[in-house]
Amino acid sequence: MFKAIIKAETLKSVIYVVSTVVDEAKMTITPDMVRIKAIDPAHIAMLDVSVKKEAFNTYEADEGEIGLDLEKVKAVLKLADSSDDIFLEHDPEQCRLIMRIGNITRRMSLVDTSNMSDPKVPEINIANRIALSADLLKKGIKACESISDYILIDADPERFTLSCQGDTDYASMSVGTADVISIDVPGSIKSMYSLEYFSNIVKVIPDKTEVAVCLDNNFPVKLLFSIAEDNINVVYFLAPRIENE
Amino acid sequence: MFKAIIKAETLKSVIYVVSTVVDEAKMTITPDMVRIKAIDPAHIAMLDVSVKKEAFNTYEADEGEIGLDLEKVKAVLKLADSSDDIFLEHDPEQCRLIMRIGNITRRMSLVDTSNMSDPKVPEINIANRIALSADLLKKGIKACESISDYILIDADPERFTLSCQGDTDYASMSVGTADVISIDVPGSIKSMYSLEYFSNIVKVIPDKTEVAVCLDNNFPVKLLFSIAEDNINVVYFLAPRIENE
Amino acid sequence: MFKAIIKAETLKSVIYVVSTVVDEAKMTITPDMVRIKAIDPAHIAMLDVSVKKEAFNTYEADEGEIGLDLEKVKAVLKLADSSDDIFLEHDPEQCRLIMRIGNITRRMSLVDTSNMSDPKVPEINIANRIALSADLLKKGIKACESISDYILIDADPERFTLSCQGDTDYASMSVGTADVISIDVPGSIKSMYSLEYFSNIVKVIPDKTEVAVCLDNNFPVKLLFSIAEDNINVVYFLAPRIENE
Repeated sequence: MFKAIIKAETLKSVIYVVSTVVDEAKMTITPDMVRIKAIDPAHIAMLDVSVKKEAFNTYEADEGEIGLDLEKVKAVLKLADSSDDIFLEHDPEQCRLIMRIGNITRRMSLVDTSNMSDPKVPEINIANRIALSADLLKKGIKACESISDYILIDADPERFTLSCQGDTDYASMSVGTADVISIDVPGSIKSMYSLEYFSNIVKVIPDKTEVAVCLDNNFPVKLLFSIAEDNINVVYFLAPRIENE
Repeated sequence: MFKAIIKAETLKSVIYVVSTVVDEAKMTITPDMVRIKAIDPAHIAMLDVSVKKEAFNTYEADEGEIGLDLEKVKAVLKLADSSDDIFLEHDPEQCRLIMRIGNITRRMSLVDTSNMSDPKVPEINIANRIALSADLLKKGIKACESISDYILIDADPERFTLSCQGDTDYASMSVGTADVISIDVPGSIKSMYSLEYFSNIVKVIPDKTEVAVCLDNNFPVKLLFSIAEDNINVVYFLAPRIENE
Repeated sequence: MFKAIIKAETLKSVIYVVSTVVDEAKMTITPDMVRIKAIDPAHIAMLDVSVKKEAFNTYEADEGEIGLDLEKVKAVLKLADSSDDIFLEHDPEQCRLIMRIGNITRRMSLVDTSNMSDPKVPEINIANRIALSADLLKKGIKACESISDYILIDADPERFTLSCQGDTDYASMSVGTADVISIDVPGSIKSMYSLEYFSNIVKVIPDKTEVAVCLDNNFPVKLLFSIAEDNINVVYFLAPRIENE
């Protein structure tokens, strides 16, 4: 059983974040939260989204699994204003999800979850952590576009820099401790990532959200952020691009 | 002779409504009104638009016919602000229409009307009638998009429902007597129509316009609405899609 | 040496004007100004833009030449708000231009100027001159679009007219002395130009800019306008289309 009401804006945030990694997603339902773990087809990015029951207006659920076609959900979300309430109900017999927004009812067939693996989210501790506003990350990515396919993140105790080096051209955004929330980086680190993947996830983080960027030399970057008054927690991993030398 | 001045906004409404059915239209001019009757090439939709002389700022006309290329008229309308006055004059010798908006003059060749049939608008009485705001119809259509090619309209004394049933998915907007202006439906009726045709006409009805939807079981739907302070009356018929069983 | 700071809005105006004629441009630097002369590949339009050092916030320069890839510069300009300051520095050793907007740094390789000819801007006096707002020219061009490939400019002491004559259709914008700033045209003149070229340059002139249109019978049209408080002067020539009779 799963029956809940959620603000359209909140559901949109979750769906857009998950869409950066997969087209179909498995929602794992428990009495306390909905969790979506996903890994992209190329195994470069991994996502773990926890939506606590407090993120919903009302929430009633047993244990269960719901397989969502994210494009269909996004089409329904376009019918809602940010402040609209969306009613969600799982109909396991008909294998579908019922969504209601005011006078509108939408019943959609669900995706079979039996073949969807449950990615194991790595338990890794990364000592280096920079906390900053999503806006700043977006600005840096915009500056780096069309120079190269890869983005270099580097940091030291004083600075955080996003940069791209092309054959002849170069772009960067470099900010100091005054521009970010905090830099906890004892030494000097750098690592390179797919610009496209990094850009896709950063672009869907709501403006002004605080994002923690955790990274190490030639190591995955871990992005952590919370939305909906910290009732939704997102952990995103992106594999590094190891340069051949 | 035909010489008139009309507000750009008013002419836009008429031209956009007629454009949903045909690319070229015959305006029949009389001393009291302009009338445009049109039937779409597939003979699924029919339109009858009466523009009373009171819809114009000034109006001088004898009997006559003007064949319009609607794309050309729309291009000229894009040059006008909604509140601009548009001067129209028929030049029968050169077989063209002269349009003036402020300092701009546009002379366009007319389409030959001799081969344009005069569709006979059926005189049918449909007992069931729902009056509601165009906005609500637009919302219902938006909800139904991309589920199926057909839209089902059903009504009873208490409710009016637009819905689409696909192979696995379903969408509907269902409203009660409190949401609409009036429901005059003694029994329970339903009929199915092309979503594309229904959507095309509903989308061009100005927001907040009151629309009367008249229908019967497996019967054409008749939409009636007035614009420009009731000086323009539109009757639109759409053939039903009869389901084979 | 070239090191300067300029308002993003000002640099945008210059780059968009030059882009109507060429994809790559040579900036000729002197201690007092930057000058860009360009001729389009078909030799129909020619441009001479003088950016006085007063158009910059700060300006330090020797003699020099910088070859710009305008698409790259435009991409960087998209990162800036109109009111942002853009820092520019020429690095002749690496043959690149460094642009800085706040925290963003962009280093771009320059285009080789050795093969770029220095077009000779003709010193011609045209007696007929109409001064009017760029907005009015834009409106006239919009009215003429999609009728013909050529635009006829004609003027006499009382009127200034832009018009297009197609096979069957005609469009014009005709304004009198009350609508323009001034008309200094002793007799009656007319000349025809490529609508596309004329439209391209007029569209990038900032709204409300005063433009002087100088022309004669079957003669190039010369457009003169200034931006950035008259610290940037633009002279644009467009060859006439001589009608074969």
